[in-house]
Amino acid sequence: MIKVGIIGVSGYAGVELLRLLLNHDDVEIVSIGARSYQGQPISEMYPSFYGICDMICESDDDVLKKADMIFASLPHGLSEKYAKYCNDHQKKFIDLGADFRLDKEQDYQEWYNLDYNEKELHHKQVYGLCEVNRDKIKEATIIGNPGCYPTSITLGLYPLLKEGMNKNNHFIIDSKSGTTGAGKSLSEDTHFPRCNESFHPYKLATHRHTPEIEQELSKMAHDDIHVTFVPHLLPVNRGIVSTIYVDLKDDIQFSDIIKIYHDYYDQEYFIRVLKTGKVADLKFVKYSNFCDISLHYDKRYHKLIIVSTIDNMVKGAAGQAIQNMNIMYDIEETKGLKMVSPSF
Amino acid sequence: MIKVGIIGVSGYAGVELLRLLLNHDDVEIVSIGARSYQGQPISEMYPSFYGICDMICESDDDVLKKADMIFASLPHGLSEKYAKYCNDHQKKFIDLGADFRLDKEQDYQEWYNLDYNEKELHHKQVYGLCEVNRDKIKEATIIGNPGCYPTSITLGLYPLLKEGMNKNNHFIIDSKSGTTGAGKSLSEDTHFPRCNESFHPYKLATHRHTPEIEQELSKMAHDDIHVTFVPHLLPVNRGIVSTIYVDLKDDIQFSDIIKIYHDYYDQEYFIRVLKTGKVADLKFVKYSNFCDISLHYDKRYHKLIIVSTIDNMVKGAAGQAIQNMNIMYDIEETKGLKMVSPSF
Amino acid sequence: MIKVGIIGVSGYAGVELLRLLLNHDDVEIVSIGARSYQGQPISEMYPSFYGICDMICESDDDVLKKADMIFASLPHGLSEKYAKYCNDHQKKFIDLGADFRLDKEQDYQEWYNLDYNEKELHHKQVYGLCEVNRDKIKEATIIGNPGCYPTSITLGLYPLLKEGMNKNNHFIIDSKSGTTGAGKSLSEDTHFPRCNESFHPYKLATHRHTPEIEQELSKMAHDDIHVTFVPHLLPVNRGIVSTIYVDLKDDIQFSDIIKIYHDYYDQEYFIRVLKTGKVADLKFVKYSNFCDISLHYDKRYHKLIIVSTIDNMVKGAAGQAIQNMNIMYDIEETKGLKMVSPSF
Amino acid sequence: MIKVGIIGVSGYAGVELLRLLLNHDDVEIVSIGARSYQGQPISEMYPSFYGICDMICESDDDVLKKADMIFASLPHGLSEKYAKYCNDHQKKFIDLGADFRLDKEQDYQEWYNLDYNEKELHHKQVYGLCEVNRDKIKEATIIGNPGCYPTSITLGLYPLLKEGMNKNNHFIIDSKSGTTGAGKSLSEDTHFPRCNESFHPYKLATHRHTPEIEQELSKMAHDDIHVTFVPHLLPVNRGIVSTIYVDLKDDIQFSDIIKIYHDYYDQEYFIRVLKTGKVADLKFVKYSNFCDISLHYDKRYHKLIIVSTIDNMVKGAAGQAIQNMNIMYDIEETKGLKMVSPSF
Repeated sequence: MIKVGIIGVSGYAGVELLRLLLNHDDVEIVSIGARSYQGQPISEMYPSFYGICDMICESDDDVLKKADMIFASLPHGLSEKYAKYCNDHQKKFIDLGADFRLDKEQDYQEWYNLDYNEKELHHKQVYGLCEVNRDKIKEATIIGNPGCYPTSITLGLYPLLKEGMNKNNHFIIDSKSGTTGAGKSLSEDTHFPRCNESFHPYKLATHRHTPEIEQELSKMAHDDIHVTFVPHLLPVNRGIVSTIYVDLKDDIQFSDIIKIYHDYYDQEYFIRVLKTGKVADLKFVKYSNFCDISLHYDKRYHKLIIVSTIDNMVKGAAGQAIQNMNIMYDIEETKGLKMVSPSF
Repeated sequence: MIKVGIIGVSGYAGVELLRLLLNHDDVEIVSIGARSYQGQPISEMYPSFYGICDMICESDDDVLKKADMIFASLPHGLSEKYAKYCNDHQKKFIDLGADFRLDKEQDYQEWYNLDYNEKELHHKQVYGLCEVNRDKIKEATIIGNPGCYPTSITLGLYPLLKEGMNKNNHFIIDSKSGTTGAGKSLSEDTHFPRCNESFHPYKLATHRHTPEIEQELSKMAHDDIHVTFVPHLLPVNRGIVSTIYVDLKDDIQFSDIIKIYHDYYDQEYFIRVLKTGKVADLKFVKYSNFCDISLHYDKRYHKLIIVSTIDNMVKGAAGQAIQNMNIMYDIEETKGLKMVSPSF
Repeated sequence: MIKVGIIGVSGYAGVELLRLLLNHDDVEIVSIGARSYQGQPISEMYPSFYGICDMICESDDDVLKKADMIFASLPHGLSEKYAKYCNDHQKKFIDLGADFRLDKEQDYQEWYNLDYNEKELHHKQVYGLCEVNRDKIKEATIIGNPGCYPTSITLGLYPLLKEGMNKNNHFIIDSKSGTTGAGKSLSEDTHFPRCNESFHPYKLATHRHTPEIEQELSKMAHDDIHVTFVPHLLPVNRGIVSTIYVDLKDDIQFSDIIKIYHDYYDQEYFIRVLKTGKVADLKFVKYSNFCDISLHYDKRYHKLIIVSTIDNMVKGAAGQAIQNMNIMYDIEETKGLKMVSPSF
Repeated sequence: MIKVGIIGVSGYAGVELLRLLLNHDDVEIVSIGARSYQGQPISEMYPSFYGICDMICESDDDVLKKADMIFASLPHGLSEKYAKYCNDHQKKFIDLGADFRLDKEQDYQEWYNLDYNEKELHHKQVYGLCEVNRDKIKEATIIGNPGCYPTSITLGLYPLLKEGMNKNNHFIIDSKSGTTGAGKSLSEDTHFPRCNESFHPYKLATHRHTPEIEQELSKMAHDDIHVTFVPHLLPVNRGIVSTIYVDLKDDIQFSDIIKIYHDYYDQEYFIRVLKTGKVADLKFVKYSNFCDISLHYDKRYHKLIIVSTIDNMVKGAAGQAIQNMNIMYDIEETKGLKMVSPSF
């Protein structure tokens, strides 16, 4: 049994980890941490756990001491010291926040206004995009779990970029996310009478996931990739749909694209390239760890439209974190993650 | 491994059974039946299954022949002949429809306008309200799986009636159900622009679940119980909340009620009597097999208000059906049903 | 032109008043007040007004001085001094809060934990239930605009009680309200991921509208009326549905009830008694000043079920307030209020 | 009084016309037509009209005969003969369908698979984009009322194209529409349990509004404009948000764009260019005739992002049709259309 601890369990990603790990056969949850709720049972904050898991929230230190495998789901800037502790004590660390995703400190400084205090630690970080970096993840002890938007986008573009089928290096990416992406904190934007029956973009071309997206796409392409990334807030609880617009090389056929995507992904349990003609919908990945991708062709202008959809809380956060853990511990990658999305 | 078949898999309750049973370790799904979709993969109708379960829908006869444990989720009037076949061939049968719930043919005739053709079969039927009829279910071969509204209501009233704490024998029951209760068929009432941002009662005091509710409550009370039952359509996908109004006997204290409910239910995994002051919400049972009950007191008029909530598709249909199967096969009752409701 | 001022324009009821009054031909809005937003244009808080009405929020004193007709939409306990000022200066005052609804100070003390400081003022207050108290409203200078729940309930029961067709004096009232009823303030309960796809009762048998309901029903019945009132929070923006359960006198026929309701209400523009068989739905009164009432009969137990529905922000607040103003100023009662509910 | 008739009143756009025209002072609605509902009151289909407007649906011929100003809201292919009748009888005709929008028969044939039977009629058609074609509309007798998506898109791009500030002639347009855009007909896609908590694109780069968009943008630019247009279905009732991606000419500053948009639109009542930093949201135009536009700059790649939002049923259909009528009859353009969007 893996002795697991969760720091930041009171947040949405943290409690989703708890929910999923409760049904993971190889895991024992030894401690859950929530600084603002120490001493309170998690079921007080989230009544769905009442009677099933009434564990008491402890201090972050308790979690670090008791667990061998630590998940941290915290605002940026808070994870480094915990990663340091884990590194010093031969514990594994998966950060669901943004502190171990960016390779260049300069990007972190620019987009998050903070420095890397433990610079050497960042040489050890592995970007936990499971299907792409599986081999590195196996050896890793510090994982930067990918952001929700970046997960949908990088998985959507991976085969295309890897095979260099794009005509140019700039992409328009129009993403839409459910409200859990905004987290548990109250805000005007997520006040029900405001949010319900509304829709709007936000942080247009300035969202913090932008450098992470460009970094990972550039690695895939072995070239600098640029994106104009515009997220929107959907009045649903969960799910991301990214609509990605790509100029195809002149000599590439749409059928080539389809073939390549199936070649890359048909053996991947959690990535489903839909049949031509079908359209990806967040509905059918919700509450699951799947990433559904559908490919569409604008034949009038030889453009590819990629639709990539995930559950932002599962494949975009807690689910992928567990998948990373499974890989790190060399257990079945799908363990604890075989939920089928309810269709309604 | 139990060889399971599902007749009527294309409906909401049928496909929910499939979804849940795919993660049940002791079950092998040997055949799924959907008359109108024979030859089509279930994942064509419900894309959430794509790549996970692409089983082809077969004829009802195929299901009957291949399986030992048959679930049928059909409009009323269609299950009897299948139950007959199962009875004749030593197979177990759980009907998620209404054909094996009413003890008296007269009630079935009055409320469903049909006769019992195989009268002797109905002597064998057991009402599959797991926590109440567990012992009978163990021995049963034909189960009438309770309706969604009756499940929430009978579980909500069981301790009270069993202990005879009610002052009179008529109850006002005001229930609210999500739209999946109306099923997969298109209707004006569930057309999105009509249903969204709407709310209204329907079939006031004339809903077909009424005789089922009265029958089971009367058995619990060993007396005739009457209900004025008014269901409402909630603009959510899932979940039922029943608000039940009870006149308490003069000498009963609210604290007595609380104690009794805990006595009856604290050892039941799937029934949670909330702490005094907490209010049951369908939110925290959705996608789970739990029934949450909260108890409230109108001290000004010595009345009890019971709030009982379930997921209509799980505890109110497919989940309870699986729980019944688990009991019938003497395997762990919670098997395949330990999902925690996501809180968002 | 009536010189109108709104105190508390930043809240939902206040801004709804502004929105409706902008299309009222006889009204000039001379000042809007919002203490926390003084100096800011209303269109900064509510962008729907941008370019149409960019009035600057002023102090409450400004409003009082500039206007002849003052609407106040404030938390309880804050309106009395403004009413005093209006009374002393021959201005008319309509309070959308709770300070001038309860006739007995004792009720106010018990349910709101405050005293009446200006006791003589409360002798002048008129309960602004337009269709019931029209004559008194004509002469009034201080109006207590009815609460949203009480409006739906008292209008639903008025003909019945007036004619004494009820068998006993206690009613079960199960109400459901959209989230705007909870106002503009952020709260856990109205955080989108929490509220969306949820449903639950709240303040069971303890809601502050209870004494207001009992007071007005008792006046109608010329007898003490008691209610067990349970409100629920609906995941929609607007609208209230009250389902009211009544024991009918033995010699009363359902057809008598129908006739009486039509007799009372057919000449009322804003109250629609639906045809027998139709069911009231908040959908069809939303964004309008109508109260729709449908009547249903539980023939098995000789009970009447009344469904009464309004838009909580219009007939339940701002619309009824304007209707009161129209009556007070002896202008056409429907002026500015003839909006038809959009059906989608 | 203008004698108005509505053909196709049973559809969403038709009944929205009726709702709005009921509060238009200069209009007398003399006949409403709905072939499938002849003889039925409109309030039977749409209960929000009950008691306010119980007009009986008549035949299309009745409407044509009785009215001087005919609105038709019909599936494509059905309007031509009615327009012919109006043309022959000196009546004015506004088509809310697609039959009089495309200048080239070839486009109509290609995208709608039908011919223009009355070719000369199409020389008289005017594209009713009010703010752009006002002068032509004044003289017109046959108006092709713009599609909902095209309205949001063409208004969003008009100043830019007119001034030639775009670097190239192809645009990515990612639009999202509420479900009323799909109309009143039942469909799987708009079945509540399917549609609620879902989101997906549809008809990617193949939607029939594409040629209409390209035609009008090309006229504005005096050059061929191409678009990759991808609509998505939003789980809300109303509203369109179009996110438009534009490469700016190298020597154009973002401040130039802002200035130009204000120059073009500040005197237009129904078009609001938001302050820099604000983001357009369908929330604040819902149930109103406004088009809100916000402008955003991707400084890293010198791209402009235009967000244009309307209520698809009002500015995108019935409201703009009335605005066209107002222009044709030389009455105040805003008459009957001054509704402020409710903010909740």
